[in-house]
Amino acid sequence: MPDSLRVLVVHGPNLNLLGTREPEIYGETTLPEIDDRLASEAKEWGAEVETFQSNHEGALVDRIQDASGWADGILINAGALTHTSVALRDVLAATDLPVVEVHLSNVHARESFRHHSYLSAVATGVIVGFGPDSYVLGLRGLLDSLTRG
Amino acid sequence: MPDSLRVLVVHGPNLNLLGTREPEIYGETTLPEIDDRLASEAKEWGAEVETFQSNHEGALVDRIQDASGWADGILINAGALTHTSVALRDVLAATDLPVVEVHLSNVHARESFRHHSYLSAVATGVIVGFGPDSYVLGLRGLLDSLTRG
Amino acid sequence: MPDSLRVLVVHGPNLNLLGTREPEIYGETTLPEIDDRLASEAKEWGAEVETFQSNHEGALVDRIQDASGWADGILINAGALTHTSVALRDVLAATDLPVVEVHLSNVHARESFRHHSYLSAVATGVIVGFGPDSYVLGLRGLLDSLTRG
Amino acid sequence: MPDSLRVLVVHGPNLNLLGTREPEIYGETTLPEIDDRLASEAKEWGAEVETFQSNHEGALVDRIQDASGWADGILINAGALTHTSVALRDVLAATDLPVVEVHLSNVHARESFRHHSYLSAVATGVIVGFGPDSYVLGLRGLLDSLTRG
Amino acid sequence: MPDSLRVLVVHGPNLNLLGTREPEIYGETTLPEIDDRLASEAKEWGAEVETFQSNHEGALVDRIQDASGWADGILINAGALTHTSVALRDVLAATDLPVVEVHLSNVHARESFRHHSYLSAVATGVIVGFGPDSYVLGLRGLLDSLTRG
Amino acid sequence: MPDSLRVLVVHGPNLNLLGTREPEIYGETTLPEIDDRLASEAKEWGAEVETFQSNHEGALVDRIQDASGWADGILINAGALTHTSVALRDVLAATDLPVVEVHLSNVHARESFRHHSYLSAVATGVIVGFGPDSYVLGLRGLLDSLTRG
Amino acid sequence: MPDSLRVLVVHGPNLNLLGTREPEIYGETTLPEIDDRLASEAKEWGAEVETFQSNHEGALVDRIQDASGWADGILINAGALTHTSVALRDVLAATDLPVVEVHLSNVHARESFRHHSYLSAVATGVIVGFGPDSYVLGLRGLLDSLTRG
Amino acid sequence: MPDSLRVLVVHGPNLNLLGTREPEIYGETTLPEIDDRLASEAKEWGAEVETFQSNHEGALVDRIQDASGWADGILINAGALTHTSVALRDVLAATDLPVVEVHLSNVHARESFRHHSYLSAVATGVIVGFGPDSYVLGLRGLLDSLTRG
Amino acid sequence: MPDSLRVLVVHGPNLNLLGTREPEIYGETTLPEIDDRLASEAKEWGAEVETFQSNHEGALVDRIQDASGWADGILINAGALTHTSVALRDVLAATDLPVVEVHLSNVHARESFRHHSYLSAVATGVIVGFGPDSYVLGLRGLLDSLTRG
Amino acid sequence: MPDSLRVLVVHGPNLNLLGTREPEIYGETTLPEIDDRLASEAKEWGAEVETFQSNHEGALVDRIQDASGWADGILINAGALTHTSVALRDVLAATDLPVVEVHLSNVHARESFRHHSYLSAVATGVIVGFGPDSYVLGLRGLLDSLTRG
Amino acid sequence: MPDSLRVLVVHGPNLNLLGTREPEIYGETTLPEIDDRLASEAKEWGAEVETFQSNHEGALVDRIQDASGWADGILINAGALTHTSVALRDVLAATDLPVVEVHLSNVHARESFRHHSYLSAVATGVIVGFGPDSYVLGLRGLLDSLTRG
Amino acid sequence: MPDSLRVLVVHGPNLNLLGTREPEIYGETTLPEIDDRLASEAKEWGAEVETFQSNHEGALVDRIQDASGWADGILINAGALTHTSVALRDVLAATDLPVVEVHLSNVHARESFRHHSYLSAVATGVIVGFGPDSYVLGLRGLLDSLTRG
Repeated sequence: MPDSLRVLVVHGPNLNLLGTREPEIYGETTLPEIDDRLASEAKEWGAEVETFQSNHEGALVDRIQDASGWADGILINAGALTHTSVALRDVLAATDLPVVEVHLSNVHARESFRHHSYLSAVATGVIVGFGPDSYVLGLRGLLDSLTRG
Repeated sequence: MPDSLRVLVVHGPNLNLLGTREPEIYGETTLPEIDDRLASEAKEWGAEVETFQSNHEGALVDRIQDASGWADGILINAGALTHTSVALRDVLAATDLPVVEVHLSNVHARESFRHHSYLSAVATGVIVGFGPDSYVLGLRGLLDSLTRG
Repeated sequence: MPDSLRVLVVHGPNLNLLGTREPEIYGETTLPEIDDRLASEAKEWGAEVETFQSNHEGALVDRIQDASGWADGILINAGALTHTSVALRDVLAATDLPVVEVHLSNVHARESFRHHSYLSAVATGVIVGFGPDSYVLGLRGLLDSLTRG
Repeated sequence: MPDSLRVLVVHGPNLNLLGTREPEIYGETTLPEIDDRLASEAKEWGAEVETFQSNHEGALVDRIQDASGWADGILINAGALTHTSVALRDVLAATDLPVVEVHLSNVHARESFRHHSYLSAVATGVIVGFGPDSYVLGLRGLLDSLTRG
Repeated sequence: MPDSLRVLVVHGPNLNLLGTREPEIYGETTLPEIDDRLASEAKEWGAEVETFQSNHEGALVDRIQDASGWADGILINAGALTHTSVALRDVLAATDLPVVEVHLSNVHARESFRHHSYLSAVATGVIVGFGPDSYVLGLRGLLDSLTRG
Repeated sequence: MPDSLRVLVVHGPNLNLLGTREPEIYGETTLPEIDDRLASEAKEWGAEVETFQSNHEGALVDRIQDASGWADGILINAGALTHTSVALRDVLAATDLPVVEVHLSNVHARESFRHHSYLSAVATGVIVGFGPDSYVLGLRGLLDSLTRG
Repeated sequence: MPDSLRVLVVHGPNLNLLGTREPEIYGETTLPEIDDRLASEAKEWGAEVETFQSNHEGALVDRIQDASGWADGILINAGALTHTSVALRDVLAATDLPVVEVHLSNVHARESFRHHSYLSAVATGVIVGFGPDSYVLGLRGLLDSLTRG
Repeated sequence: MPDSLRVLVVHGPNLNLLGTREPEIYGETTLPEIDDRLASEAKEWGAEVETFQSNHEGALVDRIQDASGWADGILINAGALTHTSVALRDVLAATDLPVVEVHLSNVHARESFRHHSYLSAVATGVIVGFGPDSYVLGLRGLLDSLTRG
Repeated sequence: MPDSLRVLVVHGPNLNLLGTREPEIYGETTLPEIDDRLASEAKEWGAEVETFQSNHEGALVDRIQDASGWADGILINAGALTHTSVALRDVLAATDLPVVEVHLSNVHARESFRHHSYLSAVATGVIVGFGPDSYVLGLRGLLDSLTRG
Repeated sequence: MPDSLRVLVVHGPNLNLLGTREPEIYGETTLPEIDDRLASEAKEWGAEVETFQSNHEGALVDRIQDASGWADGILINAGALTHTSVALRDVLAATDLPVVEVHLSNVHARESFRHHSYLSAVATGVIVGFGPDSYVLGLRGLLDSLTRG
Repeated sequence: MPDSLRVLVVHGPNLNLLGTREPEIYGETTLPEIDDRLASEAKEWGAEVETFQSNHEGALVDRIQDASGWADGILINAGALTHTSVALRDVLAATDLPVVEVHLSNVHARESFRHHSYLSAVATGVIVGFGPDSYVLGLRGLLDSLTRG
Repeated sequence: MPDSLRVLVVHGPNLNLLGTREPEIYGETTLPEIDDRLASEAKEWGAEVETFQSNHEGALVDRIQDASGWADGILINAGALTHTSVALRDVLAATDLPVVEVHLSNVHARESFRHHSYLSAVATGVIVGFGPDSYVLGLRGLLDSLTRG
């Protein structure tokens, strides 16, 4: 284990829009604010997070491949790609890192095509529906298991 | 809001077996140990938990009905009933309390009939796959939202 | 046929909550009030009703088994168990009594899992959507056929 | 509300054959006899019924469109069109009148294509399986709600 | 292995009605008579059976949990719960006892919802269609494997 | 049996277009020519045919209802209504006449929605794919069984 | 090509209700107003439209058959029959005229049974969701292709 | 075309049992009697039939392959293989002979797995439900088309 | 009933490989050893078994047809043909003999295509999962019912 | 509303190949020619279009996000991504701009996987099958509604 | 490993027709020519092939059982049985030999029932669409792995 | 045809990870080693390969579009995009080049979502399961057909 645990936080398509658009739906928290909360939380654990957002499936795959060289775990909200990307599933499975999948909204209470995730079966754990807290709870769960690991 | 937040923790069928049987699968943590962790966690928040386990769907429904008179939120691992009980879904929906659904194992990586939950659509949030930590994370998420509420 | 017709009225899970919770959805009529209306209606026909509510599938099955010894017909709103209980279907089929199935809300206008009833195929008739009147109409239909019987 | 409530009673394809053919299946009651029972029942409520039977989907749609100008409610047994006619669903939804759907036989105990009704989701209530009494119970349910309305 | 093999025989909902109702369908053998046959059969093997019937899923789960402390195998006819209870599947899987599933009637020749059993995949063997003999054959199969075990 | 057998021949929607349009697909035989062939064939058997074509489902139902008063059998090519009309199925079932269903083209080699017929299950026999000969063969089959009847 | 292009405009069931009922849903434009807009639009192209509305599938089929003798193209909003009528599909395919299918509302955002159209596969083009403009755009598209023809 | 038309008649599994077993279901006509009727019918057309029955899919395929060297058409009742044999479909498609598929019973009124035929899509025509007459009608249809050929 | 009961034992494709290949999966019992156990068991009942194995569906059908002339019952493990052969179902249904279906392995715990048997619906009883004991139990069940018969 | 309406025109994967390849299928119009037609059409309305083509889902999402800052509406032919991209659906829903979806070919007459669009449910209107005119009609429909807006 | 590798080449139903019939579809290569190419290819590797064609599933199973005694690998084109034979799947799985599945045509571009192969899941590799080259490539792949083995 | 055949080899997402990660699963061959083997193989044929790997669907589409200007054929392992990318299917279909699809693992023996390929129906041939040899065999098959072409 490295001196300090490092976590890659991955945000999928359209999550960069958080907070600035449709706040009545997605809340007023912006993605940078979420990233700040994650950084603070990590700090409390003596850990570090590195965050990455992209609307490009390929860029997300590239980044996750890269992470297998330095990260201790992955926290991912793949957004819409959750439901369509086998490539993300494969790259997550290819890393030997623990993966926590999070979603802001309760996907099970939305359209039926959002009920299935290609990623869940290769994740350690999944957290949905807590808004920005989904990320924080997910990070805690990930760090907890890494620390005990 | 009451002086101190109160949460009903509901454990469904067979969760009383935790820790004492098949520890290689379900881990060595027992249900009383989980309940203790939840009590400690609650205490940190100045909250209280009351826990209830039953193998009877009807008893679980009775208890949740009763909780709507005194509880501020519900944390539930309905076990096998997750996949078969519309009665639990209805009683959870009938209460006007926030509900957090948790699962020890990653249900999405198991038999296909475990991929669907009747409860998720009426829950605030869902947490799966973190073992006993699923409960702790769920309680935090629930108390967090109640405190901010 | 006995001197006076006797009908067992069965209320499934969560129907005991009627009227006291979410009146904007389920109306303000309570289950005792429904039972009173049924008793009055029965009286007009020179009949008697005995009512039973439980959140336990097993208790409902027990009660229906028992009814086959003294009742002339069964009026049942199985609530959520309508959609999941083969045991209720089997016990209703096992009695040689006429059965009328009722629902307060129009189940066909709700979630798709509520469109299927395990009970309907073994019932004499089914009445849905009239609120508390579903019970009254169902009792009339049942008594009418028993009287003519 | 008009001085006297008026209800359009709609009979779909082949219901004109009632009673005169296959009495062992459909019973010996004819459609005119059913219409008479409905007229009597209506009279007791100080209401009137106007009945219409056709084997033509288009004629049924025409009649229901017309009814929205004078009727207070619609009682309909759409027969075979129940399972195939979106046009009837649409015209019922287009009227702002309460609609009660009835069936003589227990459609849930017959071929699977009879288990689905295009009309139920836009009806106030549905009554099946009581033979000619389905109509009478349906009319009562309709008049009851109109009277209280 | 204990001095004498002990088998828990579990009867699900409505099996207590056997023989006394609808004998033309289910035959004239009562449940006590089946239990007697099983006791005799067991005796021949120097084994013992303990039988339990309940209409309550929860009670069946409780009893099976308890059996894991003293029984050498389980013989179960879960009745209607066969097709709907994941809780029973889970408790059977949780015990490390061999399980034999039996059914009186040939479920494959009945309604399609009876073709699927949640229990079969976790059972050692399944016997259907031999009437009361299903139990006797099942007990033999179970004792045979336990004896050789 | 009447002195001379009488058969109602029913042609559904768009069959009036036969021969005059798209002869490369449907052949050059017109509907009147088919009717003539059927009349000749019937004459050889000392029978009579009465033919009816309509693009209106309701008109077809009316005509078949009427036929139950005088016809000995029905030969029907319901065209597109084959795949959509429960009303035609019901009226054919309601008559106590033998029914033979025919199709010009091989419906099984066309779009999948043409593979299912609502009528076949209530027909005595079905003949598809022989072009105009389907009618002639169907009439023979019908008259054969009526004569032997 | 004739001196002036002629288009048959076909309106299916319930479209005669447009504008006068439920204006909050369907807008305040009436069918005559739509027909007027289409006539004006046609005039600009030196073309003519003839419009036909019926609630009867058979009447619509009759009219389209007739049109194949004089029209240069067909603009059709089959309303509810879109989803249920193979007869309309067949008659449209039988004409050798270009067909444009239009819908006022966005059928893809409504009930799932409205997502499938029997007509689309035999149409040249389909336009949905623009309200009355769907017709106008459809007519332009049709005339454009006919003019270039 | 040869001097005299030759038709291979193929009977699939269990058709050799016809008439001698379960006459109340399959009638009293035996397969040799059917073959005789076909021979007579053929003779009237100046044609010949050669008949072949086997319970072996492979033997049926062998025989049909052979027939492509001398036969002018094939009349086949593949029995149970109708629903399961792609090999028969392929060999029928591989011959360049017209094929008529027949069935004694109305397969559309039996179990749902009998509603699909692998053969129909490669047949010229299909005849079902006329008992032994299905064969005779099928032979006529086949010879008719061959003669006109 | 004959002096001594005779049972045809049918083994489908690949069962001749038992014991000599993959003993870790299928056990070390060979087919001849199973046949010997069945012969011994039969002898105890004063009955006889005749056994037949083939990898050819047609040969199995031939043999079962033949058995209807002399056998009193059939014990069958159709192996892979269980899931694909309608011909075997039909020949079993055509005999008026009681049929017991057995399987060595628990087919319900294997690939999903092994969960469906074409034979079960026409069998008297089905026994799966007991290894070679499935045959012995099946024979007992069959002889028991024949003896009582 | 800005001085002049601005529309973003989005072309998905492979649309850059238009006209230069397989002209017999896709016509001879190139994408620049379509863009020119759209520019001209826009000019007539006093509007402007900005066009963007990419084979990268992520680039399309980026561009649409950007458009929400300056555009008044979006005209999109997402090509193959229509059927697979939830990310495009989400970004279109996230903008508060009206969206018109167009397709060159009649997707409903092609492979079944092209019948479903993830975009349609969040679009204002959909136009398919008019070739390049689909774009022009779509732009008119969009500008029309914006102008009236 | 034997001195020289031996491969059993299995050809399923109708492959004996290759080249002599429908050459425009299946090419002009005959099965003996394919066998010759395979023999030559094998020779280059110092290996031998033995080829077997049958239209009988049972004969193919017999032959593959036999091969497990002497062959080092199996190259199989099961033709139509690919899609229907669990018996072939089972015998291939029962041998402990590597299996390569080949198809002449691209089955994925044909009828949907040809998209599923019962054999692929138990094969080492699968090659489709290269015409006779599928066999040659398959043999190479098989010998390559055996040589490296 | 050019002096020397040129083949574009396309590797989809995550194939760049080959050999360096999880060698126990994917083997120890790296992608550069595979590319080397392909280059050598091509050289023997007097051909050239150009290889391209990307985790970006759009980049793969771009590259394949480009290849249609210079390549004679395409060899593609689209990895996870095989199962999700209509855009790749469309660009492959848009080129008029022969396409060979390869997979390292036997996709038919893995998760069910890997059984379907959007690409196969537009490929010339498909090769799965031979590990790195899948590429080599695929290249041979492609060059063979190009050479003969």
